[in-house]
Amino acid sequence: MQGTMLYGPRDIRFEGRPEPKIIKPTDAILRLSATCICGSDLWPYRGIAEVTQPTPMGHEYCGIVEEVGKQVQNIKPGQFVIGSFATSDNTCAICRDGYQSSCRQREFMSGAQAPMLRVPLADGTLVATRDLPSKELIASLLATSDVLGTGWFAADAANVKPGSTVVVVGDGAVGLLAVLSAKQMGAERIIAMSRHGSRQKLAREFGATDIVTERGDEGIARVKELTKGIGADSVLECVGTQESIMQAISCARPGGFVSYVGVPHGVELDGTQLFFAHVHLHGGPAPVRRYLPELINLVLNEKINPGKVFDLTLSLDEVAEGYRAMDDRRAIKTLLRP
Amino acid sequence: MQGTMLYGPRDIRFEGRPEPKIIKPTDAILRLSATCICGSDLWPYRGIAEVTQPTPMGHEYCGIVEEVGKQVQNIKPGQFVIGSFATSDNTCAICRDGYQSSCRQREFMSGAQAPMLRVPLADGTLVATRDLPSKELIASLLATSDVLGTGWFAADAANVKPGSTVVVVGDGAVGLLAVLSAKQMGAERIIAMSRHGSRQKLAREFGATDIVTERGDEGIARVKELTKGIGADSVLECVGTQESIMQAISCARPGGFVSYVGVPHGVELDGTQLFFAHVHLHGGPAPVRRYLPELINLVLNEKINPGKVFDLTLSLDEVAEGYRAMDDRRAIKTLLRP
Repeated sequence: MQGTMLYGPRDIRFEGRPEPKIIKPTDAILRLSATCICGSDLWPYRGIAEVTQPTPMGHEYCGIVEEVGKQVQNIKPGQFVIGSFATSDNTCAICRDGYQSSCRQREFMSGAQAPMLRVPLADGTLVATRDLPSKELIASLLATSDVLGTGWFAADAANVKPGSTVVVVGDGAVGLLAVLSAKQMGAERIIAMSRHGSRQKLAREFGATDIVTERGDEGIARVKELTKGIGADSVLECVGTQESIMQAISCARPGGFVSYVGVPHGVELDGTQLFFAHVHLHGGPAPVRRYLPELINLVLNEKINPGKVFDLTLSLDEVAEGYRAMDDRRAIKTLLRP
Repeated sequence: MQGTMLYGPRDIRFEGRPEPKIIKPTDAILRLSATCICGSDLWPYRGIAEVTQPTPMGHEYCGIVEEVGKQVQNIKPGQFVIGSFATSDNTCAICRDGYQSSCRQREFMSGAQAPMLRVPLADGTLVATRDLPSKELIASLLATSDVLGTGWFAADAANVKPGSTVVVVGDGAVGLLAVLSAKQMGAERIIAMSRHGSRQKLAREFGATDIVTERGDEGIARVKELTKGIGADSVLECVGTQESIMQAISCARPGGFVSYVGVPHGVELDGTQLFFAHVHLHGGPAPVRRYLPELINLVLNEKINPGKVFDLTLSLDEVAEGYRAMDDRRAIKTLLRP
């Protein structure tokens, strides 16, 4: 088969790859219905995270089960399944507590920008739908695999409740779906920090009540102005840079909640500033598996349409153009059809 | 009157000071029944926090109201009162949310190592007892003013619940009272990290079930061993150094809770490490005012005896010796009698 490899900064190649096979008896092999490019794929693509060897790319996926290992009990060939970017046994103490993305047997997925994918710990990682979903729902189901699950975790980790005042820092696909998630959780006011017209529009569609275009100190001042001078109840940091996390902390009220869901790059938090900010801080790799059943149901019942973040659809062999479009911010998120 | 001033590293002077007077109509003047030296006073005493000018010391206090300003309505002369190290109006949005130590009108108290003290925002800051308490309870009531309130916040901010497994990092007075607080909140297992015999003894008396004497990586490994390899539900960081906070984060399980209540000195948190630790983090200046009514009741009903952390009692004019004893770790905490 052909699959996507990153050889170095901006060097994406769609090339011959060995077809995945069952390696462990807990594995499953999927034939993907759709896959996509993640904002986090841009870190190594841009050379900000180092690439030391050719690396198979992609960790968001949904598709039809082709084959399962001998110990797989719940997942069956022919089922439509969705899984998280982190594998999980879903039975260890950490999984039972809802932190499947830190499962004791966790592996981070890779190689999903391809037609076929091996998924370890299939029973714990994958969630099957009862029936095969209609084509129209594939994009939104794919979104639950990471980008929606991560936005949802951002809202959950920042304690969004009915009536909350929420700030979302970052207008990438995760930030936009964090807006959608906050709306679903009953937030009354959702302030999206965004400077891009098309993203502002989607943010409003997903539930944003206010847009703040300023950044840094001016952005913080504007949020304070909008929140009676004290800051927001919940701030969802969906970028992962030093500037964005400090901006998030400064936008929260004392006693408020700040979540961070983007892999941080070069972030150092000053202890004294954090101490006097008086906020709750929680984040990390989103435990998407915890949320998958609920999110899949919301999509199947057409309560939400997270697939709207895919504003570019390409065939899988055009993957390099998909990266370029996201790198240039011509696309929010690229869906790839195998 | 005579009061305590810090002129520079290890230069404590008990010297003539102007008697405090009502400055604002919301002030009260107290005649102190007892005061004490805080672990945080040792930072400037040791020269780790800079002292740029002679500074009045002390922020823990209880005593009898001598006089109140014209706008004070609830606090009356003759009452026995306790207040927090941070003043609060107790009416603003932040106070109502329980974060009085970040009140919009907050001032940090100073000058309490003296016989008389001016307390701003008396109605919001002070809590009066119904009757004058007996002498035997003064030490424990004084403890509620900061050291117990701070230990209590450590336990509360780290989500200690009935059945929790808790680690306390730091065996100073705050750490020891964090043990007591965790016990009161129903923790099943309380692991105190301590290398000092007398402090270990008090930790056990307050409810510690295990003592870990190792520090750093060895300490973390020992905690993991005691917690089925996954780490504790709640870790209470009661020191404020880089080493202690990183140790605390590493002792928590993914999804667990870490609190920090000691003013950090030179602490920088690595974003990536924090991200993958997957913990909840909360702390800051303890909102003691939130807890005072409950803590005072626990003391008056003799449910707890936090005054035990005072293992040295001196008269106020011996304050310099009190600092020396704590600096040398000959005393856990020094109570001063005016």
